[in-house]
Amino acid sequence: MVNQQNALDGIFHALADPTRRAVIGRLLKGAAPVKRLSEPFDMGLPAFMKHLTVLETSGLIHTEKRGRVRTCHLDAERLAAAEGWLSEQRAIWQGRTDRLAAFVESQSPQAAMPEQQ
Amino acid sequence: MVNQQNALDGIFHALADPTRRAVIGRLLKGAAPVKRLSEPFDMGLPAFMKHLTVLETSGLIHTEKRGRVRTCHLDAERLAAAEGWLSEQRAIWQGRTDRLAAFVESQSPQAAMPEQQ
Repeated sequence: MVNQQNALDGIFHALADPTRRAVIGRLLKGAAPVKRLSEPFDMGLPAFMKHLTVLETSGLIHTEKRGRVRTCHLDAERLAAAEGWLSEQRAIWQGRTDRLAAFVESQSPQAAMPEQQ
Repeated sequence: MVNQQNALDGIFHALADPTRRAVIGRLLKGAAPVKRLSEPFDMGLPAFMKHLTVLETSGLIHTEKRGRVRTCHLDAERLAAAEGWLSEQRAIWQGRTDRLAAFVESQSPQAAMPEQQ
């Protein structure tokens, strides 16, 4: 449970930045070398590498090095973990609003009428 | 687009903490006064208030004050915004893995056989 909480901390922290979300968006299309990944971003390589480290620590990506080329891969099941947490919350919220709506309906004059007859 | 990116930054940042996720979990069941919300957490009120400020800044909650009681309300559509971003990414990923699977299948000996005859 604590590990799951820690994992969610890291995943949501990693997602809280437009550069890191854009890197994920790029890696959804397939693995890519660090240098090519960094090209669209207006920042130096050291700053970009810090973003990759945050993504790697969260488990959202992993990297492999062959010769001088380091390639980044997405680990999409981590995105699914974050989505899973959010959809659980939505289900709870939906359940509550459904119950509220049913309660309000049961208290409406039309619904109450048969009991009053 | 920039505003949407900023909103996602704030929402994901707010979700990257177990106390703040627990507060959201509690507020899913209904609005609650700050004091009662803070009770389960082993921290002083000032530290707890900082978490509420992060949640409020992200738009995930809003508060209203009547007399001396400040009550917190969840704004669940912000959770839906984060879930929406994640489900978009999943759809892209799913589309890619489906295309890959279809490609691999089309290259398998069985599929290739009619062309070889």
